[in-house]
Amino acid sequence: MKQEASLIRGFAALRPGAVLEPRSFDRAAPLPTEIEIAVTHCGICHSDLHLIDNNWGVSIYPFVPGHEIVGTVLRTGAQVSGLRAGQRVGVGWLAGSCRSCEQCAEGNENLCRAAQPTCVGRNGGFAESVRVDARFAAPIPEALPAELAAPLFCAGITVFAPLRRYIRENSRVGVIGLGGLGHLAVRYARAMGCGVTVFSRTADKEQKARDFGADRFVDASRTASLEAEVSTCDFILSTVPVSLPWAEYVNVLKPDGRLCVVGASPGDIQVPAIALIDGQKSIGGSAIGSNAEIRVMLEFSAAHGILPEVELFSMAEVNRALARLRENNVRYRAVLANEA
Amino acid sequence: MKQEASLIRGFAALRPGAVLEPRSFDRAAPLPTEIEIAVTHCGICHSDLHLIDNNWGVSIYPFVPGHEIVGTVLRTGAQVSGLRAGQRVGVGWLAGSCRSCEQCAEGNENLCRAAQPTCVGRNGGFAESVRVDARFAAPIPEALPAELAAPLFCAGITVFAPLRRYIRENSRVGVIGLGGLGHLAVRYARAMGCGVTVFSRTADKEQKARDFGADRFVDASRTASLEAEVSTCDFILSTVPVSLPWAEYVNVLKPDGRLCVVGASPGDIQVPAIALIDGQKSIGGSAIGSNAEIRVMLEFSAAHGILPEVELFSMAEVNRALARLRENNVRYRAVLANEA
Repeated sequence: MKQEASLIRGFAALRPGAVLEPRSFDRAAPLPTEIEIAVTHCGICHSDLHLIDNNWGVSIYPFVPGHEIVGTVLRTGAQVSGLRAGQRVGVGWLAGSCRSCEQCAEGNENLCRAAQPTCVGRNGGFAESVRVDARFAAPIPEALPAELAAPLFCAGITVFAPLRRYIRENSRVGVIGLGGLGHLAVRYARAMGCGVTVFSRTADKEQKARDFGADRFVDASRTASLEAEVSTCDFILSTVPVSLPWAEYVNVLKPDGRLCVVGASPGDIQVPAIALIDGQKSIGGSAIGSNAEIRVMLEFSAAHGILPEVELFSMAEVNRALARLRENNVRYRAVLANEA
Repeated sequence: MKQEASLIRGFAALRPGAVLEPRSFDRAAPLPTEIEIAVTHCGICHSDLHLIDNNWGVSIYPFVPGHEIVGTVLRTGAQVSGLRAGQRVGVGWLAGSCRSCEQCAEGNENLCRAAQPTCVGRNGGFAESVRVDARFAAPIPEALPAELAAPLFCAGITVFAPLRRYIRENSRVGVIGLGGLGHLAVRYARAMGCGVTVFSRTADKEQKARDFGADRFVDASRTASLEAEVSTCDFILSTVPVSLPWAEYVNVLKPDGRLCVVGASPGDIQVPAIALIDGQKSIGGSAIGSNAEIRVMLEFSAAHGILPEVELFSMAEVNRALARLRENNVRYRAVLANEA
């Protein structure tokens, strides 16, 4: 792909819910703190569908999705150090932050209230190249193939960070849902030394759950099956964007346990206060991960050989890939590849 | 008070909601792991009212309330070491646990699912003496007067334990409610080096809140006043047994903040999942504290001179004290004293 032209080719939705169309954009030089990355691969996340459809009211059209980006550094701004042209890097949900707030000062850029999502207010990775704040680009260990590393930058870090933060070796970890996030959560939790229980309403995923490393599988479509798991899990990670029987999952927690939500379920989480007080339990969210956590996640993934299962599409097949995702048929993550 | 008789005098409710009546009970020798304590003082907690009224369906009549007990050791069972007759000790919500579960093994007796509340299934502290598992009696530092130490064993530990667990020096701590628990929470948080914001629907408590150590007071009866506090608190402790505008309090949390509930509010806690994910926030409960935490709390209270404000009643005035509590007129904890 020729990268010296003054235009960047990409795929954009021109209005909410539209199929993507080829589109060219002006190429601007990186700011002094930015780098430009030639995109080789980009994973597709459910959030991309939400943004294409403007479900969150923040999309700007023409809209170029994509925030699980792997590529090579094309150019670096004058103030960038530590990255050089030709280096392989990845970028996730965020492409910038304010640099000055308490959260940025503590290295929690993901919690900065002025953090800039990679494809909100700027063009994402369904394109030839992207520009991002250099702090938000992480070098990728050699052991990780590019097309498999891409989903680690959103799906991977979203489940790795809370597991790293909240579990201990030998915890019993529950994972709700076995999709793009869930299958990686099972692999990470297993590699961290934990027993893993998968809760899924798709009973025929049991064998895959076990292949990924789960030693228990619970058919969550049956109420009685949750009751049979009362007080078994130290930590439960919900990766599904659906409403759950919250109080029943709180009952599945052991004392001092935490239910952590990373799938944006609609409506309210509802749970009796006494269910949290009695047994000292909590329900919380987790928001992707910091830049430092992304680097730890990459090292851990390389050391333990943890990679997603993907379906690979060429960038030109983007609409076919999006259609499969809308139908929940992707196993377990779709990744787009630019032609070399 | 003569303690060698074969009967123990106390005050009991004979049916749900009844005023307490003098009543005598057989005195049994302590089990080998137990001690008998001559009660000198006993605080009155809202939970005592719930139990008198059988609101939780666990009360057995005649019911003797009382679980903020201070007294002197009368007798020790054959296997008890570390406590001796005549020693001043205190007992809180729990009087025993299973000794064998994972939680007991880790020293989290308060999370043992078979833990035995001091006045559920056994007689509480509105009496001449009580028997408890010796592990659940803590020696009281000399600096703490008995009548002021009593409320520390339930109100004190209930707020001290989560503050110790979840905050850091210089955290901004929110305390919802300025009653028996709340006023101690303000004093502890201040002594731990934190700024404290009190949220109360009783605007005329502002001066007392500041006297206890709060540097901000928010009239929580006004919705606009909560909106003005958005993203200001690292940790919020709810000490009130009422339903709250949960989502609005979650908004008062800074990123990575925790709302901790120790007041058993009726109905469900309700909050949008995205409010927890965005900003990585959590809502949790806390359940009194472990035996080890109680000892740390007592040492901290003695070192920093942290004591409750109490209204003192003789044991014979128990019904007058309970009536004041039912009317929410107690400032800030009622304590009963046996005659010497």
